[in-house]
Amino acid sequence: MTSEVRIIGLKGPADIMPGVDLAAMIVEAAEDRGLSFSSGDILVVTQKVVSKAEGQLVDLHTVSPSPFAEQIARAQKKDPRLVEVVLRETKRVVKMDQRVIIVETRHGFVCANAGVDESNVAGEGTVALLPVDADLSARRLRQAIRDLTGIELAVIISDTLARPWREGFVNVAIGVAGLEPLKDYRGMPDTEGRMLQATTLAVADELASAAELVMGKLDRIPVAVIRGYSYTPGEGTATQLVRPPEKDLFR
Amino acid sequence: MTSEVRIIGLKGPADIMPGVDLAAMIVEAAEDRGLSFSSGDILVVTQKVVSKAEGQLVDLHTVSPSPFAEQIARAQKKDPRLVEVVLRETKRVVKMDQRVIIVETRHGFVCANAGVDESNVAGEGTVALLPVDADLSARRLRQAIRDLTGIELAVIISDTLARPWREGFVNVAIGVAGLEPLKDYRGMPDTEGRMLQATTLAVADELASAAELVMGKLDRIPVAVIRGYSYTPGEGTATQLVRPPEKDLFR
Repeated sequence: MTSEVRIIGLKGPADIMPGVDLAAMIVEAAEDRGLSFSSGDILVVTQKVVSKAEGQLVDLHTVSPSPFAEQIARAQKKDPRLVEVVLRETKRVVKMDQRVIIVETRHGFVCANAGVDESNVAGEGTVALLPVDADLSARRLRQAIRDLTGIELAVIISDTLARPWREGFVNVAIGVAGLEPLKDYRGMPDTEGRMLQATTLAVADELASAAELVMGKLDRIPVAVIRGYSYTPGEGTATQLVRPPEKDLFR
Repeated sequence: MTSEVRIIGLKGPADIMPGVDLAAMIVEAAEDRGLSFSSGDILVVTQKVVSKAEGQLVDLHTVSPSPFAEQIARAQKKDPRLVEVVLRETKRVVKMDQRVIIVETRHGFVCANAGVDESNVAGEGTVALLPVDADLSARRLRQAIRDLTGIELAVIISDTLARPWREGFVNVAIGVAGLEPLKDYRGMPDTEGRMLQATTLAVADELASAAELVMGKLDRIPVAVIRGYSYTPGEGTATQLVRPPEKDLFR
């Protein structure tokens, strides 16, 4: 059992342009901090820098809202162009009320505004979408860092989402590579020797939340290294963190 | 901005009896590990040990289920005595389906089984309730540790809860003392100099999730010390983490 975990923030560059080599940038940021990656380290990278590097940006000036988007925008007091972009990322609307549009995205995540976000994006009127496939983004980043350094990391791509019932956003995993995102304790004996029931922990989400503690929103710390946590290596994906419709009581 | 955070697990005793001095026990566990508390440390303690120390235990053999509890238990395939205990802790039922009973507890938290839990409790047929007032428990523990050591810590009492939409449980804060549980970025400039919109982070929940990484369910590590995170000191409570009914779209 791990008894000490370290979370180390890495500064990112002032601006990240589409097509940039994110792996090289992260390796350089680690070097700048005097940090050498070790096997077993977990790299947590914010969705925003991944989306920027992958060019997942939309200039709202180029967007013509549909009549439906116009109507929703009026009712929810939002920019119709933003609503149009949100709807294009949407597979199913979960809830629309109080200026909040909660949808199931093309990827299957349930979140407000389909993860489309205006903050920390250069250019007035430019918004960032989620990566097309954040699991694939994580696997590619993992491979690229292995190619550069020879080290096998686990990679988590994180985004800050709101939740029902509780105030405030928390960081969760939307892409993973090299680790199992869920840790299943079912059938294992508890401290009293009884079987634990129905306890599966979303460790990838907990790792993403832990990483947020060193990230902050205002500083340029889009990457964290988590060291000392003994995760289960594997081919897990963040889509495993999405509750299947038949088990979801809050569809 | 913090750029490195450490999370250190502290072993707990084999069994925790009602009335035990939890503060003394934690100070001793820290000494055993060669750790001296410092001002600014955050102590995260699992609800289970707090509930045990406070005697928040119910022997199911002493519980007579009401006809309503019997009926629910049949429909949801649960122990009617457990259902009875859950209903006694309940202010409002949110959802009952698929063997899951999600309620608003007397405290206002929305969670499965009103936080009533059978695991890691000594005695077959004994269950642990949530603390009567986990914010008060946190304040008392903080005061007791200050009395013993002279050090001002922040304290979080955590519990592992399921969420809608996403698989797996994560650790969240159900009691806090000495820190503000929400960090509000609204109105602050982002990296591009624009105002951040609607971004309030539930840092107490993120701290609880981070602590879980060293806790595990099978080992006796019910306490974690988080060091290096610059929180906002204050008189915040975990009830601030409960979304007010009028803002909650998933009541």
